[in-house]
Amino acid sequence: MTLNRAVRLAQRPIGAPTTGTWRVDEEPIPAIGDRQFLVRIDLVSLDPAMRGWMDDRPSYMSPVAVGEVMRAGAVGTIVKSSHPRFREGAVVQGLFGAQQYAVSNGAGVTPVDPTLGTPAMYLGVLGSTGLTAYFGLLEHGTPRPGDTVVVSAAAGAVGSVVGQIAKIAGCRTVGLAGGPDKCKLLTERLGYDVAIDYRTASLRHAFAEHCPDGMDVYFDNVGGAILNAALANLAMHARVVICGAIAQYNEREAPPGPSNYWRLLVNRATMTGFLVFDHLAEHATARRRLAEWVRSGQIYAPDTVVPGSLDDFQDIFSRLFTGANVGKLVLDISGRP
Amino acid sequence: MTLNRAVRLAQRPIGAPTTGTWRVDEEPIPAIGDRQFLVRIDLVSLDPAMRGWMDDRPSYMSPVAVGEVMRAGAVGTIVKSSHPRFREGAVVQGLFGAQQYAVSNGAGVTPVDPTLGTPAMYLGVLGSTGLTAYFGLLEHGTPRPGDTVVVSAAAGAVGSVVGQIAKIAGCRTVGLAGGPDKCKLLTERLGYDVAIDYRTASLRHAFAEHCPDGMDVYFDNVGGAILNAALANLAMHARVVICGAIAQYNEREAPPGPSNYWRLLVNRATMTGFLVFDHLAEHATARRRLAEWVRSGQIYAPDTVVPGSLDDFQDIFSRLFTGANVGKLVLDISGRP
Repeated sequence: MTLNRAVRLAQRPIGAPTTGTWRVDEEPIPAIGDRQFLVRIDLVSLDPAMRGWMDDRPSYMSPVAVGEVMRAGAVGTIVKSSHPRFREGAVVQGLFGAQQYAVSNGAGVTPVDPTLGTPAMYLGVLGSTGLTAYFGLLEHGTPRPGDTVVVSAAAGAVGSVVGQIAKIAGCRTVGLAGGPDKCKLLTERLGYDVAIDYRTASLRHAFAEHCPDGMDVYFDNVGGAILNAALANLAMHARVVICGAIAQYNEREAPPGPSNYWRLLVNRATMTGFLVFDHLAEHATARRRLAEWVRSGQIYAPDTVVPGSLDDFQDIFSRLFTGANVGKLVLDISGRP
Repeated sequence: MTLNRAVRLAQRPIGAPTTGTWRVDEEPIPAIGDRQFLVRIDLVSLDPAMRGWMDDRPSYMSPVAVGEVMRAGAVGTIVKSSHPRFREGAVVQGLFGAQQYAVSNGAGVTPVDPTLGTPAMYLGVLGSTGLTAYFGLLEHGTPRPGDTVVVSAAAGAVGSVVGQIAKIAGCRTVGLAGGPDKCKLLTERLGYDVAIDYRTASLRHAFAEHCPDGMDVYFDNVGGAILNAALANLAMHARVVICGAIAQYNEREAPPGPSNYWRLLVNRATMTGFLVFDHLAEHATARRRLAEWVRSGQIYAPDTVVPGSLDDFQDIFSRLFTGANVGKLVLDISGRP
């Protein structure tokens, strides 16, 4: 019988993950119990949040234990089932982990509806990154027509969708990204009105130039110096949405916090943290709307699907943090050409 | 004719105000124009926020200009008037400045209603500090019965009122103050369920002990390390209210920001800044409710009214920052015994 291959956490990284962080184990495929099913995984999601799951500190989920299969979103096909609602042959998305085979009881599992999008889209624009953009912006950023919405990591899986939903909501959008290629993508493909290359621009001057009336919404994926500069440029009653802090996930020591938090008072503004899991009841509706926007061309959702094996996991994961990646990053382990 | 004496900003302080920061000028009492009135000032309010008004940087009000009369809340008696709504003999409260006589057109001026409270109370529990406590807690903290509400600078003019309103709202209250005397005041007079002496306690341990389920509301008057420690102890969906940052007003360099802002995401929490001026339409109602609570004994509003002259201004102002002050601090320049 075929063995399972699984990426397990070998040791907690200090700073960026290295070759010793994970190991790939070969092991028997577990048997399914009552009301369970076995998924053969084709696509493994690579997300910045996964770095946070590896640290042993309080967070919104328990950390991945050393020795445990690395937690990851994935899409696969059910190859065996004793579950009445999940049939063999169905394609499903869930937190199946970075491995070839996973056993599930169906908790948190979403069937892939091919009329809405491709399996890879279920890890991106129709999956947790698209839903994160949707709820973060619409529920917590509460954009109004005419608002100036500023997004960091604007070419990333979440940021690329945030900007386009903000345009649909009638806003003016300003995206931050690193390098001329990404900035070009922002304005030419992702509908941003303005792109700021944070690597070359003085953020203070760029914000003053492109947000002369301040930011009504600042959607933060990066933390660090960019968040702090944004806080100094808020409009009255601005909404700051804390979605991620990719600039500091690999930091060895706690980076300094945003000293300009004080501007929340000056501008009667709000800074809110949220998680996409808090809106489960609305996921299906949101997914349908996102699929419609993709179909109508109002949302362009770039992705980078890298064919490879689980042995490439660390190498491909690291692309999330080097600035090399655009849009949703997915590892395709199906072996299909 | 009597001259006016006025405390004018002589030079912007770097760090804490010193003897050269203000000068006291003797000058003619200005004539009143049409629809204006002249106030003889009895009581001058001393508030931490005044320190912020002295720095030349963007804030919610323009900074006091060098040479200008120091902006300050005050209560006095109208001694001359050409204004139909403000009669001679009326006692009024307003931003009249640190001086003996002020001319006003009535903007932002509130008549003192002696059935509600004393003139000094109109600078404290019935004035901007009491109203700040009221709106900051009730509108932005949205306390619910059973919530744990934590307040920094809990023996101060704002914090002393916040804790008592939180008790009225059915909450459990934890106050932070410096030194055993203030902590005793918190629990014995100000209704706090728990007092934490931030000078001696490990905040991490104290919060873990006294807020085992986290803080539902954290009302921050201080900023700095206490804010950062509080952010690490939030309950789910906590509300952090940014009211002040007294710990850093006199800092020469921007202090580090709260690196634990990230917990807003983990706990799906919100950090909001507000100003009491944003709720002007509701001030009268709030003032009546506060007066009722004082009358019924549900709110004890300590104040420190220091008789003196404008020459004592800097000396008395500095008490706000040394930890020496309890409750509302007022300078009485009336010369009445």
